[in-house]
Amino acid sequence: MLNAWHLPVAPFVKQQHDQLIITLWLTGRGQPERVILRTEVDNEETPVAMRKMRKPAASGATLWRGAINLQQGQPRRRYSFKLLWQDRQLWFTPQGFSRFPPARLEQFATDCPDSGPQWVADQVFYQIFPDRFARASTRTPEQDALYYHHAAGRTIIRRDWDEPLSLEAGGSTFYGGCLDGISEKLPYLKQLGVTALYLNPVFMAPSVHKYDTENYRHVDPQFGGDEALLRLRQNTLAQGMRLILDGVFNHSGDTHGWFDRHNRGTGGACHNPASGWRDWFSFDEHGHACDWLGYSSLPKLDYRSATLVAEIYQGEDSIVRHWLKAPWNMDGWRLDVVHMLGEGGGAHNNLQHVTGITRAAKETQPQAYVFGEHFGDARQWLQADAEDAAMNYRGFTLPVWAFLANTDISYDPQKIDAQTCAAWMDNYRAGLSHQQQLRMFNQLDSHDTPRFKTLLGKDVARLPLAVVWLFTWPGTPCIYYGDEVGLDGANDPLCRKPFPWDKNRQDAGLLQLYQRMAKLRSRSQALRYGGCQVIYAREDVLVFMRVYQQQRVLVAINRGDACEVVPEPCPLLGGNTWRLKEGTGTLEADCLMLPAISACVWQA
Amino acid sequence: MLNAWHLPVAPFVKQQHDQLIITLWLTGRGQPERVILRTEVDNEETPVAMRKMRKPAASGATLWRGAINLQQGQPRRRYSFKLLWQDRQLWFTPQGFSRFPPARLEQFATDCPDSGPQWVADQVFYQIFPDRFARASTRTPEQDALYYHHAAGRTIIRRDWDEPLSLEAGGSTFYGGCLDGISEKLPYLKQLGVTALYLNPVFMAPSVHKYDTENYRHVDPQFGGDEALLRLRQNTLAQGMRLILDGVFNHSGDTHGWFDRHNRGTGGACHNPASGWRDWFSFDEHGHACDWLGYSSLPKLDYRSATLVAEIYQGEDSIVRHWLKAPWNMDGWRLDVVHMLGEGGGAHNNLQHVTGITRAAKETQPQAYVFGEHFGDARQWLQADAEDAAMNYRGFTLPVWAFLANTDISYDPQKIDAQTCAAWMDNYRAGLSHQQQLRMFNQLDSHDTPRFKTLLGKDVARLPLAVVWLFTWPGTPCIYYGDEVGLDGANDPLCRKPFPWDKNRQDAGLLQLYQRMAKLRSRSQALRYGGCQVIYAREDVLVFMRVYQQQRVLVAINRGDACEVVPEPCPLLGGNTWRLKEGTGTLEADCLMLPAISACVWQA
Repeated sequence: MLNAWHLPVAPFVKQQHDQLIITLWLTGRGQPERVILRTEVDNEETPVAMRKMRKPAASGATLWRGAINLQQGQPRRRYSFKLLWQDRQLWFTPQGFSRFPPARLEQFATDCPDSGPQWVADQVFYQIFPDRFARASTRTPEQDALYYHHAAGRTIIRRDWDEPLSLEAGGSTFYGGCLDGISEKLPYLKQLGVTALYLNPVFMAPSVHKYDTENYRHVDPQFGGDEALLRLRQNTLAQGMRLILDGVFNHSGDTHGWFDRHNRGTGGACHNPASGWRDWFSFDEHGHACDWLGYSSLPKLDYRSATLVAEIYQGEDSIVRHWLKAPWNMDGWRLDVVHMLGEGGGAHNNLQHVTGITRAAKETQPQAYVFGEHFGDARQWLQADAEDAAMNYRGFTLPVWAFLANTDISYDPQKIDAQTCAAWMDNYRAGLSHQQQLRMFNQLDSHDTPRFKTLLGKDVARLPLAVVWLFTWPGTPCIYYGDEVGLDGANDPLCRKPFPWDKNRQDAGLLQLYQRMAKLRSRSQALRYGGCQVIYAREDVLVFMRVYQQQRVLVAINRGDACEVVPEPCPLLGGNTWRLKEGTGTLEADCLMLPAISACVWQA
Repeated sequence: MLNAWHLPVAPFVKQQHDQLIITLWLTGRGQPERVILRTEVDNEETPVAMRKMRKPAASGATLWRGAINLQQGQPRRRYSFKLLWQDRQLWFTPQGFSRFPPARLEQFATDCPDSGPQWVADQVFYQIFPDRFARASTRTPEQDALYYHHAAGRTIIRRDWDEPLSLEAGGSTFYGGCLDGISEKLPYLKQLGVTALYLNPVFMAPSVHKYDTENYRHVDPQFGGDEALLRLRQNTLAQGMRLILDGVFNHSGDTHGWFDRHNRGTGGACHNPASGWRDWFSFDEHGHACDWLGYSSLPKLDYRSATLVAEIYQGEDSIVRHWLKAPWNMDGWRLDVVHMLGEGGGAHNNLQHVTGITRAAKETQPQAYVFGEHFGDARQWLQADAEDAAMNYRGFTLPVWAFLANTDISYDPQKIDAQTCAAWMDNYRAGLSHQQQLRMFNQLDSHDTPRFKTLLGKDVARLPLAVVWLFTWPGTPCIYYGDEVGLDGANDPLCRKPFPWDKNRQDAGLLQLYQRMAKLRSRSQALRYGGCQVIYAREDVLVFMRVYQQQRVLVAINRGDACEVVPEPCPLLGGNTWRLKEGTGTLEADCLMLPAISACVWQA
């Protein structure tokens, strides 16, 4: 049977002067007579005849070679292969063979030159919900007296670190975690292997989650104020760590001075049609403000207003730019519900404004990393380069949930086999360039989902499989604080428990697995920069390989009983000496022996 | 076996006040326990529980019903169906069942409200290459003395109408067709069933094809000048016919005054770095102008220049606006190689400028029809609403070529069976809303391809199958002048032969088929506005149904030997009385008898 092999990375793609040399490997019977490299110049399909190399690869594969001229065209180089016989043709794409030409956006793609932030794929991120990660040893009782709520009669709950979290008043329960607490824990994070932090919102806001911004220009004194963020910035820089903030630009909070629901006399837009900020929000014919998804505390910003656009991103000292400049020097933005912001109370002209935010960020800090929160399909935003990456719920988290925990994002049952899981993940990333794939923000869970451990329920033995997957799948891994020590919890607020610093409450074995995987990743270019090829996917078993230049890493995930797996003959697999780096499986002569419920990693 | 049935059109979709009522039909065994309508509000996935109707459909199908709130969200309503059982789920989309959630842009979609031109789906277009369609009876020898070429030594060939076309000097061979010639032939076109004309370029230019524009503000005197276009506009209006021009905004001609390669003293950009038009083109460090695909007569326009942007589309009397206003009152633009135009000699910021052209056109004439030339995948432009439609090479012409003529656009062999053909066409249109599908510009061939008749070669008996397909597939059909009388010809220049007005040289049977099909379409809302469902696709036979409210049209295409076809049980097929409207097949009790190499159309 004919098989084709290609990844948009060396050794299949090599830059030589002004050309990108593209190589396709073919194995098996029924090889084509001609191969055309279907590339494009300025969006126009352009066929390039490929040359069959006289010498086959060491693996025995037939090599076909063609070139893309880098002096012409747009930086995203998209291509696929047209295989030709006397009377028929077949296309080869990242999703395998097709009898008809592939969609323009589902081809191999590499960005050359690549203008995205170059440091992202090297990171291990750590997401922190500031009130719940660490309380500074220096924290004073005065700081715990700062909690408040504008709405009359709203309960504020103040808890000690070891008190259990309850379901009531989720948005107004405070444990006293703060930015200086994070600074104190940097040695712990460094030992874990973390190199970059993503913080949930830290700007002034009444709630504990602070998605109801009251002032975009100051850090909440509850978290230690501006000075604490400056200290955290200095401390992370000293450790060589990156620091990303959460940008909530779809809505403000209703206590923000621009809106000010609770004070009639202040000139806020809520009660004053003549307010200078009135057109920063949308009002219906009865004068009611348009809020986000019915949350009255979250009035939606209206990007029809040029002055709002200037304040948020366009102006010289816009909020987006402000925090990327000295002395703050943040490394980028995570953008909250970014697909929903727009004009007139809805998402009108969304793409234009998201692009505007990202461009403003890059003008201020060319290496800024800007990525959006998308539970759904983010490909349209990524394909338009409206942002560098997305929180990869759709392309990583949800397929992993379905395969290992049999659930979807609505907690409906979703039972899939490995071939469906691979098809899902491959279909999604086929819409992204190789460089975009490496920058996707992969998580097992977040402050907006149950902990993955809790989703697994009685299948908790599968947890290590997901951890290995997180560190080996294309994209930058992000650990949601506490996952590494086995913290559990159902949906918000239970997924936001305080970090259990008491070692007796930590899963030491799990923590060691995270540390080993972070270290393995930090030492492997294949895991950080490599292409990814699924080489076996059937029922309970998924095997994939990361490829970068001469490096190979093989990852096998088996959710079922102990088993023996022999992938199809694969020129990427054979001819290598493999060393087991994680797990207890064996690999001999292309035959993998996988223990029950296990994940194994081999390095060539 | 479980089957699901839905089209984004009544009776499956009905607007009631501020709601869109969506109905899914299910037949067969293993029906789900719950069905979720996966819709979205402002780009956010929003699940809506569907209600199982107590009463099944007349066809016996189980009905599930849910509603989309039209008061929220963006006009393009995208949705799919999540079918749920105790332990698993399945998604239903325009491409059938999927085990994982569909891509955002591959769901059912209907535009509500629909802001596109409302008249397009009602048309039968006719494409005219003006020099070759008809010579006015009033044409004088003076008009034939107007041909010229700026380049020294370049041959001009002047031919009489009945002289054969030769391969030499394709761009400089003139037969004397003109706009008054078209006016004289309007009765012929009306009788054919044509209701709208698309003209290849008519503005001043040295070549016969006039893609090398010399002046965008005047019609070439060779074609009768501005006055002839005004007469044609009046005459078409009198017949109730629409009229569309060809907008060539990727490049000008090198004799345009802005550039003026052949005159050093005129201030054109070519030889004058200080020219006011210098930045309307791109020059390399040696002062050489960037041309389009190496054609030195076609210097590429550079949309970095704000003054060029104003002249082409943005300004109050831009070229795009000029011809849509009185007295010209054109009905829209076909945009030449629209995916390639952009900044800096390439396609940079292409989407922004294409969107700008279309917005300018709509501001001037809200019902203007703006569609682009795309041989490749146009979905990115359509999904961004950068244009109303595309020349549908990719979603109609090329799959028809492959299925009936075994060739692709590069004349490489492409042999596909009916299931591949259906998958190709369905995959492509799944990326478009129902209303967009109805506005796609479908052709069998054009001035840029061989005539389809010629492509068929010895399989010319399949030609009528393609004609029936053209008039019954979703989209607005366009006849390339002369196809209807059997004109043949290989690639440019041979596909541009003069129209054979001598009836002895016309295929009268073919002409009658075109007339019957145009009439059938004009009388059938199902063919003009209906959804489309392929109900059988195997080997040589493709059967599809157009559905609109209670109307049903069934189309069967058989490229092989005489055969008998029984589609899967289909609730859209049963329970109807079918009348044969075209062809000689029979339909009894869901069994279709199809003659060899035939196309049949039944109406319920």
